[in-house]
Amino acid sequence: MNSVQARRYAVAVIGATGMVGEAVLSLLAERDFPAGKIHALASARSFGEDVDYGGRSLPVGDLAAFDFAGVDLAIFAVPPAVAAEGIPRAVAAGSVAIDLSGQFADEADVPLVVPEANPEALADCGRRGVVASPGIVSALIPVLKPLHAAAGIVRLRLGLCQPVSAAGRGAVEKLARQTAALLSAQPVELAPDEIQAAFNVVPATLAEAAGDGPPPASRLAQDIRRVLGDAQIAIDASVMRVPVFFGYSCQVWVETREPIEPVTVSKLLGQAPGVALLSSSIRPTAVGHASGRDEVFVGTIRRDQAQACGLYLWVVADNLRKGSALNGVQIAEILIKDYI
Amino acid sequence: MNSVQARRYAVAVIGATGMVGEAVLSLLAERDFPAGKIHALASARSFGEDVDYGGRSLPVGDLAAFDFAGVDLAIFAVPPAVAAEGIPRAVAAGSVAIDLSGQFADEADVPLVVPEANPEALADCGRRGVVASPGIVSALIPVLKPLHAAAGIVRLRLGLCQPVSAAGRGAVEKLARQTAALLSAQPVELAPDEIQAAFNVVPATLAEAAGDGPPPASRLAQDIRRVLGDAQIAIDASVMRVPVFFGYSCQVWVETREPIEPVTVSKLLGQAPGVALLSSSIRPTAVGHASGRDEVFVGTIRRDQAQACGLYLWVVADNLRKGSALNGVQIAEILIKDYI
Repeated sequence: MNSVQARRYAVAVIGATGMVGEAVLSLLAERDFPAGKIHALASARSFGEDVDYGGRSLPVGDLAAFDFAGVDLAIFAVPPAVAAEGIPRAVAAGSVAIDLSGQFADEADVPLVVPEANPEALADCGRRGVVASPGIVSALIPVLKPLHAAAGIVRLRLGLCQPVSAAGRGAVEKLARQTAALLSAQPVELAPDEIQAAFNVVPATLAEAAGDGPPPASRLAQDIRRVLGDAQIAIDASVMRVPVFFGYSCQVWVETREPIEPVTVSKLLGQAPGVALLSSSIRPTAVGHASGRDEVFVGTIRRDQAQACGLYLWVVADNLRKGSALNGVQIAEILIKDYI
Repeated sequence: MNSVQARRYAVAVIGATGMVGEAVLSLLAERDFPAGKIHALASARSFGEDVDYGGRSLPVGDLAAFDFAGVDLAIFAVPPAVAAEGIPRAVAAGSVAIDLSGQFADEADVPLVVPEANPEALADCGRRGVVASPGIVSALIPVLKPLHAAAGIVRLRLGLCQPVSAAGRGAVEKLARQTAALLSAQPVELAPDEIQAAFNVVPATLAEAAGDGPPPASRLAQDIRRVLGDAQIAIDASVMRVPVFFGYSCQVWVETREPIEPVTVSKLLGQAPGVALLSSSIRPTAVGHASGRDEVFVGTIRRDQAQACGLYLWVVADNLRKGSALNGVQIAEILIKDYI
């Protein structure tokens, strides 16, 4: 039954002036999310600015002074420490909070959800009033889930190329500044212990990139195991910061319990929601495919030359969209459809 | 016994105007190679230029017209097709040829040598008069050899970040040009099917990078197995072109037959020739460590979280030095000491 007056939801986007917050607002507008009032919020440093929501300008309010009463959904696109303080306030006021920061991802009674894999976990959203959305893992799961269902992933090695925008707008500006300096043969200004980002590959920890949080392998591995619902998968991750503005690239080595042919994997991924499988002659890249797109792009699918029952895949995705904001908005869409 | 008049050798450097050829000339001068006459040669496109040899200017001769008679050592820093044509001429004239191109690397009666691992293979240099020097594999072997000797490498996965200079000066200029255009919000000019190099990570094949040659996994894997003298090692390699001018970075996952602790690996690599082991607080990078240096730098050494008997290492090296020219010059040094 179509209701003439469909319900509309009061939504708060916290961290609205950040790159992920901006992406959340864009996606809510693009996807016609049935938002009534939208509250754009930020911490003291940037409230008072305006942000764009589907062509309209929204004033940015002060998170510290905001009263969450009447807000149905609060999407937190902020650093973990800000989420740790703000989410309990939102929940106490009766909002359901979606945490994009990783702060709540480790808590057993907070569902960690990638809609392509475990939307049913959202049934637990009422326990704490918080749903956690993983970062880059959101963009890998649409590829891993069909593989795991078909052949049983037993081991996974990830070589992840992280763009600077994963560390926020400051890192984007720094890469541009360093690059411009080097091209004009000027010295690059670096803080003590800082490593040049421009024209360089820097082995990074996700912890470092996020500013907080647990160490990288455990973070990625834990999130993948939880979302796939399999605590036995052995996972190693190597994370590199690359001089790329937008878009993750990831080398994925997968070992499965049952043998599975690359051609079968292609068929599976060709039908997988959220995945864009490219023909083998096309090599997807962060710039050419990922940036600004919602899908997770898969290029090469081949046997791992080092292992029977092993596969290698090359995966790229927009770090601000499926690797962050989009997954949060997809969670919001399911929450309003089925749970709130 | 020191001879008063030590023998000096006539050396030809072919491809002298290329980046690897320039590095060969620098290294011969830096390392006081006992060169008598040095012939700098190039193909028609660039002979007539001058190149630097230890502060002296050498005119560049025409490879096609050059008579190799009297040349003791001919170092070929040229594309495979040029080596295929030039090396037989040098050998017919009595020179020993060192092939940096990969053209002769697959031939069973041509020794493929990394001095830190298999200098004894040079005893076979007389069979064909040619010695092959591997490319990036030269820079990995000083790290892999001690590990293989101590614990037996059974499986290897490489995630290799290749700088643009590995594809020659044209690729270096292209990255600078594309980057400058993008920073000034100008369009990037690309050929059909060309993928933007600037601010992007492009999954590459070594074959593509070299312009010729066998496919990547087989090239790298074959060279590693031959130099380590173990046909059983299972190897998978993923190669990415990154927007870096100089210096390889490599993620290395190693599985060994015998268990070996990271601390033991640190001790081994701390004593390994050609390896600079950094303290765990320092993350070596292409720009910060590799570029312009002879050593292979190893940073992170940790357990592979996905595998018992598994290790992960982060390795960086100068692609023009140990990843190419230096290995050739080290081969030349052993040849004159022991074999010619």
